[in-house]
Amino acid sequence: MRPNDDVETAQSTVSDVGEAGLLKIIFPYLEKQGKDLIVGVGDDAAVLSPTACFQHSMVLTADMLVEGTHFPSRPNLQWRLLGSKAIAANLSDVAAMGGIPSHVLVSLGLPPDVALREVVALYDGMREMCQTYGVSIIGGDTVRSPQVIVSITAVGRMPDGVSPALRTSCRPGQNVYVSGKLGGSKAGLMLALNPSIVSLLEPRVVQVLLERHWTPQPQVTLGAILAMICPDLAMIDISDSLVHELKTLAEASSCGFDIYVDKIPFPPEIVAYCNMTNEKIEDYILFSGEEYELLFCTRLAPDQLVARLRELGQSASIATIGKVTESRGLVRFFDSSGREINCDDRTFEHFLPPQINCSDEHKS
Amino acid sequence: MRPNDDVETAQSTVSDVGEAGLLKIIFPYLEKQGKDLIVGVGDDAAVLSPTACFQHSMVLTADMLVEGTHFPSRPNLQWRLLGSKAIAANLSDVAAMGGIPSHVLVSLGLPPDVALREVVALYDGMREMCQTYGVSIIGGDTVRSPQVIVSITAVGRMPDGVSPALRTSCRPGQNVYVSGKLGGSKAGLMLALNPSIVSLLEPRVVQVLLERHWTPQPQVTLGAILAMICPDLAMIDISDSLVHELKTLAEASSCGFDIYVDKIPFPPEIVAYCNMTNEKIEDYILFSGEEYELLFCTRLAPDQLVARLRELGQSASIATIGKVTESRGLVRFFDSSGREINCDDRTFEHFLPPQINCSDEHKS
Repeated sequence: MRPNDDVETAQSTVSDVGEAGLLKIIFPYLEKQGKDLIVGVGDDAAVLSPTACFQHSMVLTADMLVEGTHFPSRPNLQWRLLGSKAIAANLSDVAAMGGIPSHVLVSLGLPPDVALREVVALYDGMREMCQTYGVSIIGGDTVRSPQVIVSITAVGRMPDGVSPALRTSCRPGQNVYVSGKLGGSKAGLMLALNPSIVSLLEPRVVQVLLERHWTPQPQVTLGAILAMICPDLAMIDISDSLVHELKTLAEASSCGFDIYVDKIPFPPEIVAYCNMTNEKIEDYILFSGEEYELLFCTRLAPDQLVARLRELGQSASIATIGKVTESRGLVRFFDSSGREINCDDRTFEHFLPPQINCSDEHKS
Repeated sequence: MRPNDDVETAQSTVSDVGEAGLLKIIFPYLEKQGKDLIVGVGDDAAVLSPTACFQHSMVLTADMLVEGTHFPSRPNLQWRLLGSKAIAANLSDVAAMGGIPSHVLVSLGLPPDVALREVVALYDGMREMCQTYGVSIIGGDTVRSPQVIVSITAVGRMPDGVSPALRTSCRPGQNVYVSGKLGGSKAGLMLALNPSIVSLLEPRVVQVLLERHWTPQPQVTLGAILAMICPDLAMIDISDSLVHELKTLAEASSCGFDIYVDKIPFPPEIVAYCNMTNEKIEDYILFSGEEYELLFCTRLAPDQLVARLRELGQSASIATIGKVTESRGLVRFFDSSGREINCDDRTFEHFLPPQINCSDEHKS
């Protein structure tokens, strides 16, 4: 039977249903689990099982970035940083499965008037990020297009005998952890979009926040080690926002979350930034995209987890930010006094009509 | 050292140097051959060696199609056929290595006003082509973009103990073969672009030619069998045009070709088409893109090759069309009387300024 025969698609457009609705349309076409597919659609990456073909499980993920949607239009486009970040986004998806990325294919759409030095800068940025993580660029495509398009596929493998870390593995009672510090990427984006406020801040603060936005580092080693040491790991990378990823996990695992906002680490520079802009710090911590930190759940207690990480030479900072609950789909946030905070999801939505006043609309 | 420091990129744009110049810029960034890479950049697909990670050699290829560059803009876009053809192009690249495709990742850029039924049609077309070849769609990305973008990565494997068929393996004295019949895809494209000439032809002729253009079939089984039975196989798929692929092989292998144009099979419907349009049949045979037939060279004689294919149950039609020569870079064409024909390359070039009178500019 042809999928979507029963869907009322005749009169609707992509923007009528948004990204989630679109994914529902596409879902029936995608392989779920089969003889050689451990993880299909619906997680950070697909994982092929070690069969006759592949001795280790293979991890595959793809990501497309379009000028004007995901990054600023020329001439404001910073090519080198775009290259670096495009690779980071893909490696982060492999890391979020607990996989080790090894190769990428890069398909590039370029308008004919793009200067060659900009193409060079883009590849410089991609190569730099690839080299940091021992990843090779092995192929792709280059085509003419009216906008700049960067479409990347990353390939990796699972470590020996390690299962992929799934979004569906959250269980009530598990601790909720994040790696690193959140919020800096969004503050850096605001600075990039509003140069007029830059002069109102200390140069050091500006630099730190712009770096958080432009050169996020995927947690490749930490992801693989967590998948090795946590027997019950659920994991996702923070590409849209903490709130968005929590909702995604809650839906995938049919669970809920109680999150203590004052437990979430943030870079101290955000305090200076929010004092100046008169905004709330939690709006940055909770709704910052492209952080590429890991959000994960395991029953392992913080002291156990930190001890195991230290044994393995991992000094990555992690923080316990809450608990997995049984309240299906309910993500609750609490402040330091234990009072619940109302957090409507303000994450970027690809297919809804642009909202001029929504600062999250243009992510990078 | 940073690549391209010595390239005069400061003042040039992509359209100044064209696709070939752009590839020269990108080339230094791409992994060539390494411990785990049998085939790097410069062939139809990358091939990873069977190492600790992967028991068989893995074949990877990526392809990006952009509205207005590779296929007609909406509302003239035929979504189902686009889906089918986009998959065919990628499977054909795997086939041209002698590989067996198994999985694809599809990244899709969509304008918000696209109707959902069009997304459904696109995926119907992709699924149909995938199912014909036992391939699964396992992931990808969906994003907002001003144009429709279809960016596909195909994954496959080499058959047991079989080496990839390279563009660099042509040797003087080898026979040159093509599978199938050439020219129909270009004639079908002309019919699609110029509906006014449709009524001047028999409906059956129109239908055959449009089908050649819209639903080309990648030669997946033939490619893998050829890689198994020809010890000296060089191979490429015809995605741009026969002339273009011959030039690509000549450059990659530092050889030349003598091609006998009357030996190249073509669909009989092209005769009726060219009689009506008053064009030369060889302009269609030699310059037709998106045929997805295989062009290959081996020292095996035609009777040996056909006998081996028959033993393996392969009835695919193949034709001997010429010889590999020692004349480096020289591709010569001869007519039935042995006279040389002058064939300037009229293949589609992505990054040169549009030439309004060049019928090859918009390929599909």
